[in-house]
Amino acid sequence: MNLIVLFGGSSYEHEISIVSAVTLKDKIKKHNLTFVFVDRDRDFYLIEKENMKSKYFSTFEYKKAKKLNLVKNGFEAKKLFGSEKISGVVLNLIHGRDGEDGKIAGMMQFFCIKCITPNLEASVVSYNKLYTKMYAKELGVKVVDYKYITDDSYTPDKFPVIIKPVRLGSSIGVTIAKNIDEYKYGLDVAFEFDNGVLIEEFIEGVNEYNLAGCYANEFIFSKVEKVKKDKFLSYEDKYLDFSRKEAKTEEVSSELEEKLKDNFRKIYNTTFEGSLIRCDFFEINGEVYLNEINPIPGSMANYLFSDFDEVIEKLANSLKYEKKIDIDYSYINKIQMAKGK
Amino acid sequence: MNLIVLFGGSSYEHEISIVSAVTLKDKIKKHNLTFVFVDRDRDFYLIEKENMKSKYFSTFEYKKAKKLNLVKNGFEAKKLFGSEKISGVVLNLIHGRDGEDGKIAGMMQFFCIKCITPNLEASVVSYNKLYTKMYAKELGVKVVDYKYITDDSYTPDKFPVIIKPVRLGSSIGVTIAKNIDEYKYGLDVAFEFDNGVLIEEFIEGVNEYNLAGCYANEFIFSKVEKVKKDKFLSYEDKYLDFSRKEAKTEEVSSELEEKLKDNFRKIYNTTFEGSLIRCDFFEINGEVYLNEINPIPGSMANYLFSDFDEVIEKLANSLKYEKKIDIDYSYINKIQMAKGK
Repeated sequence: MNLIVLFGGSSYEHEISIVSAVTLKDKIKKHNLTFVFVDRDRDFYLIEKENMKSKYFSTFEYKKAKKLNLVKNGFEAKKLFGSEKISGVVLNLIHGRDGEDGKIAGMMQFFCIKCITPNLEASVVSYNKLYTKMYAKELGVKVVDYKYITDDSYTPDKFPVIIKPVRLGSSIGVTIAKNIDEYKYGLDVAFEFDNGVLIEEFIEGVNEYNLAGCYANEFIFSKVEKVKKDKFLSYEDKYLDFSRKEAKTEEVSSELEEKLKDNFRKIYNTTFEGSLIRCDFFEINGEVYLNEINPIPGSMANYLFSDFDEVIEKLANSLKYEKKIDIDYSYINKIQMAKGK
Repeated sequence: MNLIVLFGGSSYEHEISIVSAVTLKDKIKKHNLTFVFVDRDRDFYLIEKENMKSKYFSTFEYKKAKKLNLVKNGFEAKKLFGSEKISGVVLNLIHGRDGEDGKIAGMMQFFCIKCITPNLEASVVSYNKLYTKMYAKELGVKVVDYKYITDDSYTPDKFPVIIKPVRLGSSIGVTIAKNIDEYKYGLDVAFEFDNGVLIEEFIEGVNEYNLAGCYANEFIFSKVEKVKKDKFLSYEDKYLDFSRKEAKTEEVSSELEEKLKDNFRKIYNTTFEGSLIRCDFFEINGEVYLNEINPIPGSMANYLFSDFDEVIEKLANSLKYEKKIDIDYSYINKIQMAKGK
């Protein structure tokens, strides 16, 4: 299989995506890897494997690489005479905007390219934290209570609270406010990034568990990771986290593990078919709550799986093209006939 | 202004979109119109205005037209030497899949092309009827009670019910079932089209009102249309409806009109910015309920507006590009420095 790793993007997490792709390079051994970079101007570049180092991008050396066009069934490099086609299964590794908001998924579907990614609809559900809440509630998965605001007219009556822009990942624009002053400042920060903000009670000392997985004829689950949470992870912490290669796993009870998997299955449903996601859960008084869906986890959470190559292979083989719609102009023909034309 | 009308698409409503575009041709007088057709294979064609007749498409004559590529900032026609660029504001008139599911919106955003369309997120909210319900409830807009099912294990205890595939428009796959046998048959039909189905109580004799509008520095509303509902509109009825040029308006009380506008504003919110949508409401016991959001109404519901050219102009002028994200590689540079490289 030729696996086309698509990374970069016009996103606050552009640099994180580069780190994620560089990390993944050594983690996929069985498949042929092709790297396609989406630069900040959204131009596509074919990156040679030996150039997959973060410095190659930060110094703009990548501009010397071969430029690609997105075309039906794959990417195309213009040559002096004709063009060269790159085809295979795409792995969408663009974190944040472009990758997680559904643009890439929609484009891959439109251009009939198989792609490991949450599809367009699933992307919107996971990218917008308000929709994640609505979606989870609809499926009977518990979420922490929240208030959705679009201006600064609301003030919570209890602190601490956590303030989150609805559409960003990697803790960007997120603040924990212990009092009204911190709250006001946090709102300013959040509204810098988004026009919608979620306010949640911040529950200290809560246990947090991550579980990754996908569906490929059957559910494939990762190990459960108990998040070590000495403190709230800032953007920088999470950034370094994206290059992580090993899981910080800890034994969890089989009862809890089953509960986490149950909730994962409900969330994954059929909506997330074709993707490998990580669900981040809270455990509060023995009950499991969904915190976030991570639709494209850093370096695909490879460190949580014992045989990552196999997971990717099974998932890739389970991908389907969109259903073909027959268009035979029967309605227009009927009208033409009725008109006697 | 050059207005690029994009129509067709790989959609059950492909033919409807052609009719919609042909109808619109004579309704926009002030702006230069360019027609770009997306055929059933998702190839783009530049259609001359004199060829904008449904027969041109149903006989596949369009295959002789100039083929286009989607590129940064517009469309491109290959010429013997170099290429010709087509730029302007796109009007997304693709009904159903591709157009209303968010693919076109996402692609236009990615390629930095201004486009009159619900954006990707708004598309998902309106295309999937389950999400429309969740979204409306979240914003305090009433919806008719429903049951969401993904298999045939649920049987309603009251009839008649209306059975709707969650993701299709134009009444495709919709059945009104008056008893259990009709229900079973209706489910089979609905699951032919989708893996998720909504079941609602079918309330007979309910008043139905359509209101179209957009936001362009201020809300611009259409006339309120009271739907003449001798019977449930089938796909064929609605199809003919798409070529309609006049509104079937009827005087409604100013109190009701204000209620409808209030609910429209809540739904439109900021989510639907950049689009002209039609909201279809029910009136039950004096209360307004959202039935459906029509994100790309047939021929843009032009017949409901007194000066359609002006609406399109104002809306086009209000369109914005996505916020530019500065990517300066400061995190990668910091890490490189820390490594001493």
